[in-house]
Amino acid sequence: MHCIFCDILTGKLEATFVYRDDRVAAFMDIQPVNPGHVLVVPMQHFVGLADLPADIGSRIFAVAQKVSAALGKSGLRCEGVNLFFADGEAAMQEVFHAHLHVFPRFTNDGFGLRFSESYSHRPPREALEEAAAKIRTSLEV
Amino acid sequence: MHCIFCDILTGKLEATFVYRDDRVAAFMDIQPVNPGHVLVVPMQHFVGLADLPADIGSRIFAVAQKVSAALGKSGLRCEGVNLFFADGEAAMQEVFHAHLHVFPRFTNDGFGLRFSESYSHRPPREALEEAAAKIRTSLEV
Repeated sequence: MHCIFCDILTGKLEATFVYRDDRVAAFMDIQPVNPGHVLVVPMQHFVGLADLPADIGSRIFAVAQKVSAALGKSGLRCEGVNLFFADGEAAMQEVFHAHLHVFPRFTNDGFGLRFSESYSHRPPREALEEAAAKIRTSLEV
Repeated sequence: MHCIFCDILTGKLEATFVYRDDRVAAFMDIQPVNPGHVLVVPMQHFVGLADLPADIGSRIFAVAQKVSAALGKSGLRCEGVNLFFADGEAAMQEVFHAHLHVFPRFTNDGFGLRFSESYSHRPPREALEEAAAKIRTSLEV
């Protein structure tokens, strides 16, 4: 199966790297939310959160923390940072090779979140308890 | 300094937990993007990515992966999952106790991202190289 991130990681496709080791790599998003937008990815092909081994996930987050720190010192406009992970097509995943977005933010940069209409209505505690009970039943930590 | 998440973690404020250990906890967001929206937080007070120890960050991500898996099996509507971390006021952080959002997604749920006008214009490779060089200079992994 064709994967553009695998092609990037094997050098078949051009990319601009900021970091790579034997487990993860970080390269520039070609459609940045803001200048300095980086993707942190596993070197091996994993689709998403379900098949990503825990140690690789942890390493991805650790590298994202380091990239965030570097963004703050880079001279690029950076007053804050967002991390974003899209797992599954319904969650806006477009490339099916797991990746964590790390992008700098600044006041009035035009980026934001859109919410459903129901978002403004806070659910009653019972609804939260009910949802939590369903999650706890399936949670294996 | 008053912190509502510290108050939640010490039991002074009501919350609905799905998980807790000695390092991290996960409880329901009171203003969910979709039903099943969980926040994964460090037990100790850390503000954001800069002061969050790497092992705690890694643990937060690992628990987020487990919560994502549980959401998929919970019976709650979940066709995908987003992880979101806001670091700094300019990045939409509202509670200054580090937290990773984990929320289920489904088709036409009304959630989405807003982008600046410049987002549709892909920058030339040289601009990516320039930004990457600035990040690499400050990157300590």
